[in-house]
Amino acid sequence: MSDLLRPGAHRAAGIADDPAVLAAILRVEVAWARALVAAGIATDAEASKVAEAAAGLDVDLPALAVAAEAAGNPVVPLVELLRTAAGDASGAVHRGLTSQDVVDTALVLLARAAVARVRADLVATGDALASLARTHRDDVAVARTLTQWAVPTTFGLRAAQWLAGVGDAVGALDGLTFPLQYGGAAGTRALLGHLAGPGGAAAAGALAQTLGLTGPDLPWHTRRGTLTAIGDALTTTTDALGVVAADVLLLGRPEVGEVREGAVAGRGGSSTMPHKQNPVLSVLVHAAAQQAPGLAAQLHLSASGAVDERPDGAWHAEWPVLARLLELAVTAASQAAELVAGLQVDTSAMAARVDAATATAALDARGGTGEAGRLVDIAITRWEETRG
Amino acid sequence: MSDLLRPGAHRAAGIADDPAVLAAILRVEVAWARALVAAGIATDAEASKVAEAAAGLDVDLPALAVAAEAAGNPVVPLVELLRTAAGDASGAVHRGLTSQDVVDTALVLLARAAVARVRADLVATGDALASLARTHRDDVAVARTLTQWAVPTTFGLRAAQWLAGVGDAVGALDGLTFPLQYGGAAGTRALLGHLAGPGGAAAAGALAQTLGLTGPDLPWHTRRGTLTAIGDALTTTTDALGVVAADVLLLGRPEVGEVREGAVAGRGGSSTMPHKQNPVLSVLVHAAAQQAPGLAAQLHLSASGAVDERPDGAWHAEWPVLARLLELAVTAASQAAELVAGLQVDTSAMAARVDAATATAALDARGGTGEAGRLVDIAITRWEETRG
Amino acid sequence: MSDLLRPGAHRAAGIADDPAVLAAILRVEVAWARALVAAGIATDAEASKVAEAAAGLDVDLPALAVAAEAAGNPVVPLVELLRTAAGDASGAVHRGLTSQDVVDTALVLLARAAVARVRADLVATGDALASLARTHRDDVAVARTLTQWAVPTTFGLRAAQWLAGVGDAVGALDGLTFPLQYGGAAGTRALLGHLAGPGGAAAAGALAQTLGLTGPDLPWHTRRGTLTAIGDALTTTTDALGVVAADVLLLGRPEVGEVREGAVAGRGGSSTMPHKQNPVLSVLVHAAAQQAPGLAAQLHLSASGAVDERPDGAWHAEWPVLARLLELAVTAASQAAELVAGLQVDTSAMAARVDAATATAALDARGGTGEAGRLVDIAITRWEETRG
Amino acid sequence: MSDLLRPGAHRAAGIADDPAVLAAILRVEVAWARALVAAGIATDAEASKVAEAAAGLDVDLPALAVAAEAAGNPVVPLVELLRTAAGDASGAVHRGLTSQDVVDTALVLLARAAVARVRADLVATGDALASLARTHRDDVAVARTLTQWAVPTTFGLRAAQWLAGVGDAVGALDGLTFPLQYGGAAGTRALLGHLAGPGGAAAAGALAQTLGLTGPDLPWHTRRGTLTAIGDALTTTTDALGVVAADVLLLGRPEVGEVREGAVAGRGGSSTMPHKQNPVLSVLVHAAAQQAPGLAAQLHLSASGAVDERPDGAWHAEWPVLARLLELAVTAASQAAELVAGLQVDTSAMAARVDAATATAALDARGGTGEAGRLVDIAITRWEETRG
Repeated sequence: MSDLLRPGAHRAAGIADDPAVLAAILRVEVAWARALVAAGIATDAEASKVAEAAAGLDVDLPALAVAAEAAGNPVVPLVELLRTAAGDASGAVHRGLTSQDVVDTALVLLARAAVARVRADLVATGDALASLARTHRDDVAVARTLTQWAVPTTFGLRAAQWLAGVGDAVGALDGLTFPLQYGGAAGTRALLGHLAGPGGAAAAGALAQTLGLTGPDLPWHTRRGTLTAIGDALTTTTDALGVVAADVLLLGRPEVGEVREGAVAGRGGSSTMPHKQNPVLSVLVHAAAQQAPGLAAQLHLSASGAVDERPDGAWHAEWPVLARLLELAVTAASQAAELVAGLQVDTSAMAARVDAATATAALDARGGTGEAGRLVDIAITRWEETRG
Repeated sequence: MSDLLRPGAHRAAGIADDPAVLAAILRVEVAWARALVAAGIATDAEASKVAEAAAGLDVDLPALAVAAEAAGNPVVPLVELLRTAAGDASGAVHRGLTSQDVVDTALVLLARAAVARVRADLVATGDALASLARTHRDDVAVARTLTQWAVPTTFGLRAAQWLAGVGDAVGALDGLTFPLQYGGAAGTRALLGHLAGPGGAAAAGALAQTLGLTGPDLPWHTRRGTLTAIGDALTTTTDALGVVAADVLLLGRPEVGEVREGAVAGRGGSSTMPHKQNPVLSVLVHAAAQQAPGLAAQLHLSASGAVDERPDGAWHAEWPVLARLLELAVTAASQAAELVAGLQVDTSAMAARVDAATATAALDARGGTGEAGRLVDIAITRWEETRG
Repeated sequence: MSDLLRPGAHRAAGIADDPAVLAAILRVEVAWARALVAAGIATDAEASKVAEAAAGLDVDLPALAVAAEAAGNPVVPLVELLRTAAGDASGAVHRGLTSQDVVDTALVLLARAAVARVRADLVATGDALASLARTHRDDVAVARTLTQWAVPTTFGLRAAQWLAGVGDAVGALDGLTFPLQYGGAAGTRALLGHLAGPGGAAAAGALAQTLGLTGPDLPWHTRRGTLTAIGDALTTTTDALGVVAADVLLLGRPEVGEVREGAVAGRGGSSTMPHKQNPVLSVLVHAAAQQAPGLAAQLHLSASGAVDERPDGAWHAEWPVLARLLELAVTAASQAAELVAGLQVDTSAMAARVDAATATAALDARGGTGEAGRLVDIAITRWEETRG
Repeated sequence: MSDLLRPGAHRAAGIADDPAVLAAILRVEVAWARALVAAGIATDAEASKVAEAAAGLDVDLPALAVAAEAAGNPVVPLVELLRTAAGDASGAVHRGLTSQDVVDTALVLLARAAVARVRADLVATGDALASLARTHRDDVAVARTLTQWAVPTTFGLRAAQWLAGVGDAVGALDGLTFPLQYGGAAGTRALLGHLAGPGGAAAAGALAQTLGLTGPDLPWHTRRGTLTAIGDALTTTTDALGVVAADVLLLGRPEVGEVREGAVAGRGGSSTMPHKQNPVLSVLVHAAAQQAPGLAAQLHLSASGAVDERPDGAWHAEWPVLARLLELAVTAASQAAELVAGLQVDTSAMAARVDAATATAALDARGGTGEAGRLVDIAITRWEETRG
């Protein structure tokens, strides 16, 4: 799918593209071969051979994608390639696993990496917002409710609410778990047990440890809460960033002029109007925030249709959706961090508006800014705890 | 909207219908009047008068609904009614609040009640599933992956996976928080502060305590994570129940016949075919599970558009969506509990199928049922911890 | 579900509430009894008795809703009531139909009535917009692209684009068809054929004619394009109205002040700020436009899952979704008509802004307003053709 | 985004990938330069130079994608490249257009090509289904409603209903229009008009003709019905194909065995179970059908948020969504054509089931198969008209 139509997608290089998917799958297969050693099922030499085979594998990605359709998923043909490359160690490849074990675990690895990237950008965003909130703690601005002037607030409180949203998002991400998938052909772990007795559990434990994942727990071939929780948390993230972007777009309208996206040479130009500076980052983050909820919903829909012992399409629908959501969230978080870092704030425009609005009684300024300052302090303090 | 087109909606009576909404709003307003007493802003006599006025309020619901449109929300006209009824205590009504404070807090109260109802039905469902898993721990059945027979499993493990899904849902619900909304006209708590100094915080604390809600914390007029988290958890719930329903529909097809929805006199009849027994509960739970993700997505979409100090439509879009989602989840949870309680299991059909499938080599039975029994035990043990 | 949380829903009274659904179902059943006469299957006396029974039926709606769950749909228990009431003419009730025939045909009747209501309000809206476009054909205003001033346009062209959107919506609605559903128990029309030979086709033809529906064509129990097309067209409608509302919200911000929602006594007041006038209609139409796409998507999802000869949940999920979409569209169209009729336009604010923006070179005015006037004329001419 | 996680995406090569997007944009720009000649604004030599420059352009796609973010869309940097390459003919490049004119027109070109591909595969699918319907016109099978056996039908009628769904989809696609976008910087066509008088209209007419698009009509920068209609029609297509796939999955379950996806060497194998043949095409088409509705909804959501003269994010959100939907529909249509071409039908299994079900009174066979045969004939006749 065209990168030209997903501006900013280069920020998510390595997150859910073919090389990343390939690497994640091979990482699982190699770790499994090593885990079989820990469980006494394979020899160290075999595991090393599998690892070497994986490292040296020269994969024709387009051909693999074609084969992935024929097989129904990319693991089946990749395992074939790996077995061939592993020669006499081929018996240690994928032994006792089902392809869903590998796909799901690889998806979890991809998601974990994406979440880490998003979190790092959220911390940068939050730090910048905390700084804005501190700096402008007492800078008065009109508050707008249902689009109309209401009472005074401060720009500090506005930034503090954005910050609190970012903090909520970090909290949501920090609540995620990244479990191993390990169930075998139909969730009973039967084939490995058949071959090797209690070794399966030992191997799975070693695998989880190697990959830094939780588990092995109950297989979750048909319980997709792991993925829906990731989708929900990433959408909670884009929700928060979307509010910042949408507010910047509103406050940066020329009639308002209270903030402005930082000017960067070569950014935001118009193809027809050289005088014009478009708030490109805000626009793209805003666009991302509109897309994430539908993607997360798609994961839930798949979760509700995860029938039988392994589902007949609901599972397959998760892959592109999760991949797109990872990419979208990583991109938006990166863009938002840059947006907030460069944000220009015009407090004199804010002050002038408050004065004018008060003078015409369009603003009810009797109550002043209430507890705005204290709320800023609370938000900053909490952020310090959340950011870790 | 027609109840006739939402079969089972009577199970959710009192959850998000007009009387429930009215009661929740009045509950907040009365509790606030009392909270003002605690903060020294209103007198006990005034608060009592407000409470009496609320208790005796004869509300013309259709007229109030019309007025709610004119005002943009139902709190504005209801406060007018309440002030009139409160007579000389009218100054203690809604003092310092904004209508969003009341609507949001009322929505949280409704959601909390709905979640409690859902949780109770999940516990009943989970207990019944645990019993099924225990009873059929070692009853062998064919496992199906991508619709085709794969290897043997047990019906106990299938029930245990359903159970684990229900446990996941309970866990998701138990992670929810139900905070007070308290921000005043634009999230600064200004008007109350203007009138009464530090009393606002004291009042809000008293309000939270009375209503059993968390807070007062930062206002969340434009940070809607409270509602999206509720939506996500309820959808996680319908996801889990949807899997049970979809599996029952598949396993209850006449060609499969491994389970059957319990027959109840008068249920599932056909208008044309007297011999026919339709799996009505499964059908309706399945239908609910398809609807919930879109509703939760709508809450996220609103969250991402919560601009300014109080938003211009994103907020309003939340109300019917949340109300519908509460109703849907309560209904589905109740139906699922009944479905599972009455489920008929035909282990001989399962056994016969395993034999036949093994004989024709359509089933790979070499590995037996692997760790199925142990996984059942784990699921049951975990359920005991989760159900509380 | 609470009307208080769906402000404006009273505008859709009779569209998809219980009385409307009941009436539609009975209308189908009575028309069918009469159609059986036309086909020589029932006597005129029987049909009259059925009609009288329906007219006199005293239905306990809550009880019927409960029974609708047990039966899986409301037709089964309603037919029982009707048969009892029809006494010795009971054999002419529902003869040869399946409940899906009746539910689907009733839904089509409800949808047709809703579409007619929406269309009428679109015509009023379009006429008012045409008048605005004509009046302000040459009133210059700044154009905004990606939120920033770009080049001049006219308010006339803006109104003309809104108008063209409304015209697109009318076109979409006018392309809809409203077919009879008639398939019998499993889409073969078998039971009636068994009883009465070629009479079935004659009866179905008479039924279609009586109800003013197209058909009988192939049954569409599992081909749901009729309903998805209705959902898509209604969403195309709310898309167009949503743009108007969102633009009014932006142009009516106090910093912009180029338009203002008409002030109506008692509308848009704030619970805390008496000076404030909220653009309530725009807010509610904007909120509606955010909800419709998800509902239409739900209809498509059900369409894609319409398995077997009659589906096991996908069908049931359509009912509340379609009912809500009908209600939402009728409400939004009515609100939009009122919004546009009362819209206040401030051309001097527009002119002053153009001058100021041109002076600061923030607006590229070299090209003037180009073909704006001609485009207005085109839009108005086309509207005259579209409105009919 | 990974192709490995979108099995079958190779079938959509050239539909919405970077080369296709690049080619579509350049095609518009070159056609525009030629159109300027027709309008007397550019010389033939200039237009030829632009065409040569475009043909010889060596575009670094990843770098262009990065630049597309900075500019907010890919046209701005591409025009720069093209102008540089065109040398002294650079004045004829993009003259009077806005980047949205080019992006939108390019999207329409991409969509038209995708729709043509989808239609061709639908015709193949429909022809195969018509053949199945004809062959099995009178082959009796049990009908299933709400999962349970109901009355007899024929496999011919089932295939005929699938066929009618495909015909509905073709009808929906045939109703689409593919208009030029031409509005200039803010929809007034001002800049070109300023430079060249009535030449703009002439040029736009020439452009439409060259590209085979309708128009020039009113600009549709903020009226997105063109794209939502495309999305709705493609989703109507995947709805119909999804029903076929879901039915094949149900009828192909080993317990049912009435149809089977054609076996192809190397397709549908399992990574663990060599005996197993997975219905891969059905699974993937089923998965696609679950994803399309959400994508189409996203286009509607963007349509409802198309504010100002050119929108601030809603527009940008359309691009990846439309690209993905084009790809998804092309892939699913291709897979469905192959699925249906290879479908194995087991009429003896159907007949045996009818007998068994009738014997146990689980099937009400009194009415026979009613008008099934006649309905098959109707469906086939109509298909012949629809397919063209």
